[in-house]
Amino acid sequence: MPEKKKIPKSAVSRLSLYLREVTRLEKGGKGKISSTELGDYTDLTDAQVRKDLSYFGQFGTSGAGYDIPSLKEAIRKILGKDKIWPIVLVGAGNIGSALLRYPGFKNQGFVIKEAFDADRKKVGKRCGDVVVKDIKNISDIKKNGSIRIAIIAVPENSAQDVANTLVKVGIRSILNFAPVVLRVNSGVTVSNIDLSTELENFSFILSSQEAP
Amino acid sequence: MPEKKKIPKSAVSRLSLYLREVTRLEKGGKGKISSTELGDYTDLTDAQVRKDLSYFGQFGTSGAGYDIPSLKEAIRKILGKDKIWPIVLVGAGNIGSALLRYPGFKNQGFVIKEAFDADRKKVGKRCGDVVVKDIKNISDIKKNGSIRIAIIAVPENSAQDVANTLVKVGIRSILNFAPVVLRVNSGVTVSNIDLSTELENFSFILSSQEAP
Repeated sequence: MPEKKKIPKSAVSRLSLYLREVTRLEKGGKGKISSTELGDYTDLTDAQVRKDLSYFGQFGTSGAGYDIPSLKEAIRKILGKDKIWPIVLVGAGNIGSALLRYPGFKNQGFVIKEAFDADRKKVGKRCGDVVVKDIKNISDIKKNGSIRIAIIAVPENSAQDVANTLVKVGIRSILNFAPVVLRVNSGVTVSNIDLSTELENFSFILSSQEAP
Repeated sequence: MPEKKKIPKSAVSRLSLYLREVTRLEKGGKGKISSTELGDYTDLTDAQVRKDLSYFGQFGTSGAGYDIPSLKEAIRKILGKDKIWPIVLVGAGNIGSALLRYPGFKNQGFVIKEAFDADRKKVGKRCGDVVVKDIKNISDIKKNGSIRIAIIAVPENSAQDVANTLVKVGIRSILNFAPVVLRVNSGVTVSNIDLSTELENFSFILSSQEAP
């Protein structure tokens, strides 16, 4: 077994890219791919592709390229995509309800099974495939013991409290849309989707370019 | 003048974090902050904070801490946030229309001024502060010559075409929600918001932990 924990996050992100491309190519009927081609599709060097795939054992024979169906299945398994991952979402506002209606997650094996909000106007409403529940009942997800992933899409002033509660009820991975740095135990993984930070990187670059 | 272009993107992202915190603290009436405190708020070391801020010249006196209003104004200026940035959004589907209604951008000085879609059902509809226009008329944004930032929220199979068109009409920075690697000229910056990749990082970690 490869030692998965030592693999850097950036390599895991690139595996996601490779998986996307080989899934697309397999649909198109392609059977084999070289590291150079896969690098072209993902804007990476062939050396990078070979290095990333080597973390996970031997996928191809040198020179002959990778067998696309085998590579796809191997990456799917490495990424844990050989099963369905249930998700709880907290905060059914603008962003949260768009995510509830977004078909992309389910197609990828990530299924939002539960949604919670503190706003009485939202509680009880159907959104996508779920009915929004009262945040007070969040410990209900313990009954559905398999949920380990949460999405936080609440305002910044309540995000930390929500995160604390989620960790108590067994969540181990949090995708956080609130513009705040969440403090969690070391066993919990947080990824921040911070759109303002991305835009500020743009305004930084653009104003540098415009500067005299 | 500091040489802005040599600053790594990661440092610029941390400046965004610092700005968020000092803005919050200023509202709370706080006047000064040490690098240690700012590090505590952002989950970074005090050495990291000092290093990042030193890229941009001298903000504080050693030992006395940083003056919060001055630090805030300096970071705002560095990030180009001393002005309003108009944005064009392409793709008014689930995610796109949530972004159009999201008040967070405007509060941060990023204003979606134009929205386009190829779907006739969406064209002509008001969404947030704008009316969605036909993608065929996208070159209209040239008339409004100041738009340099775009958000792409179209399906993956049309994202590259949209990107090509946007670059032709003067866009220099693209926030891309489509799950595809966009190819653009070297003068154009692309940031990808890839939610599936984030979730796949979680499923990777969780399945590693569950493995025997």
